[in-house]
Amino acid sequence: MKRKITLKQIARELEVSISTVSKALKDSDEISKDTKQKIQAFAKLYNYRPNNIALSLKNRRTKNIGVVIPDIVHHFFTTVFRGIEKYANERGYNVIVCVSDESYDKEVVNMELLANGSIDGFIMSVSAETQQKNDFHHLREVMDQGFPLVLFDRVIDEIECDKVVMNDEEIAYEATCKFLEEGKKKVALVTTESYFNVSEKRAEGYRRALVEQGADYDPKLTLVVPFRGGEESCIDAFFEEEEFDAVLCVNEVFAVQVMGIAQEKGYRVPEDISVIGFTNGLLSRYSSPTLTTIAQHGERMGEVAAEMLIEKLENEIGFEEEETYRTEIIEATLIERNSTGKKK
Amino acid sequence: MKRKITLKQIARELEVSISTVSKALKDSDEISKDTKQKIQAFAKLYNYRPNNIALSLKNRRTKNIGVVIPDIVHHFFTTVFRGIEKYANERGYNVIVCVSDESYDKEVVNMELLANGSIDGFIMSVSAETQQKNDFHHLREVMDQGFPLVLFDRVIDEIECDKVVMNDEEIAYEATCKFLEEGKKKVALVTTESYFNVSEKRAEGYRRALVEQGADYDPKLTLVVPFRGGEESCIDAFFEEEEFDAVLCVNEVFAVQVMGIAQEKGYRVPEDISVIGFTNGLLSRYSSPTLTTIAQHGERMGEVAAEMLIEKLENEIGFEEEETYRTEIIEATLIERNSTGKKK
Repeated sequence: MKRKITLKQIARELEVSISTVSKALKDSDEISKDTKQKIQAFAKLYNYRPNNIALSLKNRRTKNIGVVIPDIVHHFFTTVFRGIEKYANERGYNVIVCVSDESYDKEVVNMELLANGSIDGFIMSVSAETQQKNDFHHLREVMDQGFPLVLFDRVIDEIECDKVVMNDEEIAYEATCKFLEEGKKKVALVTTESYFNVSEKRAEGYRRALVEQGADYDPKLTLVVPFRGGEESCIDAFFEEEEFDAVLCVNEVFAVQVMGIAQEKGYRVPEDISVIGFTNGLLSRYSSPTLTTIAQHGERMGEVAAEMLIEKLENEIGFEEEETYRTEIIEATLIERNSTGKKK
Repeated sequence: MKRKITLKQIARELEVSISTVSKALKDSDEISKDTKQKIQAFAKLYNYRPNNIALSLKNRRTKNIGVVIPDIVHHFFTTVFRGIEKYANERGYNVIVCVSDESYDKEVVNMELLANGSIDGFIMSVSAETQQKNDFHHLREVMDQGFPLVLFDRVIDEIECDKVVMNDEEIAYEATCKFLEEGKKKVALVTTESYFNVSEKRAEGYRRALVEQGADYDPKLTLVVPFRGGEESCIDAFFEEEEFDAVLCVNEVFAVQVMGIAQEKGYRVPEDISVIGFTNGLLSRYSSPTLTTIAQHGERMGEVAAEMLIEKLENEIGFEEEETYRTEIIEATLIERNSTGKKK
């Protein structure tokens, strides 16, 4: 995708002043008919769209970065935010956050709000509902308006932009192998609904490890916890219905809930049931037993996202030059604590 | 404090058009000398200060609320934020957050950023450093510019504005009494540096309970954990140096750390040492044992703050009418779990 053409670029290309371009596009009598026609045709050809306030404010840099995250009560997103802030502040940028609360509508409203002159570019992780609806027009819109966009964690394959992701598939593979090395035979997965692409990748790594290592892969051992509420009773029912000796959980809250319910039911962790979670937050460190978990390095992810965005903001590409995008991968780390056993 | 006078109000009072007022204040030749003198004198008398962009944008309502919080990786602030969002969204407002990261400078920059046309009013909890420096000019500045301000939790006595606070002193009193009812004799307090006025109030409730109930109050049993870092080694040293059988902690992280260190040292919780924390987050629910804690009802606090702000935004007061402010108190609740014993 090409960046949106600006008044300045039209002026430069046609060797006239910016004010002439502006007046010509408003069909002012001050400009000769020939010049107007030339400028109007050129603007049309390159799809120039005046964008009232947003555009005029955009030309004076705000030095603000807009961050849109799905949830503020979530250790991972808040640590990514910290990383964004850390890097951005060092480079003289401020950061404003809006929270989509996993809602598509709120995400759209938030992005319009921020695009209206408050910020120079976006860093975001899309909401659950947006992934579910598969509607990304609001992302395309801000990019068309000339705002650089960096997606992190929950990224969208169909959107061409800079991205920062974690090696979700590989680290889930590694965690599953760890259970097998301990001698566990029936490894379960507790995950969220699959429209989260990260959950899908983790499920894929889990499945691949079991298949490649010659262990049993039984789809019944995957528990999909519904999007909002009822997690605990759902996990409780899973314990009643299925048998397993290890559980990989896609976040630390599920992992701590699984450990709590297992212990209530008289299982020992990790002797009877080993547990591994994702996210290395306070819960993992202070749960009982302490949780073996996958550190997602959210702060690093935030720093990289901010670096990519600021690079785009500060290096204007030439007129008609193709924009290039890249995807950075942050390597997660398995942190061993007491919810898993020793290698056999 | 009176609200700042606007062009519109000057125009209404002097029975001229807004554009006449504006031109007169710019000393335009289009306006007669007499009219200019009258308008300029009136504006001076009522302390009119033109505020470039902020003011002109202010006149067209943004329907956005700016929230400035000290920390995003903190259960209490994020739940307050949720409450603000919930109420504001219902009333058709959006919420933008900036995080001061406990820094005075960042708080100042964030408020300038938001005041620059993005929002209609502020809800905030001031940073540690701001309380330490005792410098609140940036709060006065946004109020002088006509932005309503609601402070929550960490409020400033010297600033006249709407406030939402918790009954910190009373609930700390109640929690301390609970230890005494269990039969505990030496109750310790683990707190933060005292420039946090909430910590000060909790310490006061703790002290008053011990004195009024005829128990020992020993200043050596108050541990002041330094602002950043080293919490665990600090708590560890406290265990080595002092003797106590109950600990009131001003947040849930300290409480969970105290329980962890106590158990490592061979004490049983609550038989040997009872523990109560503040904040009813995930940690309290999943720690081992589960934590008796003070629910601060952050979501309710956020809802009330948003309600107060929107009321100010939507009910313009008359010219020369005195602004009135109120302070709402949210009643905290003691939630009993397994880190405290039964009443004796």
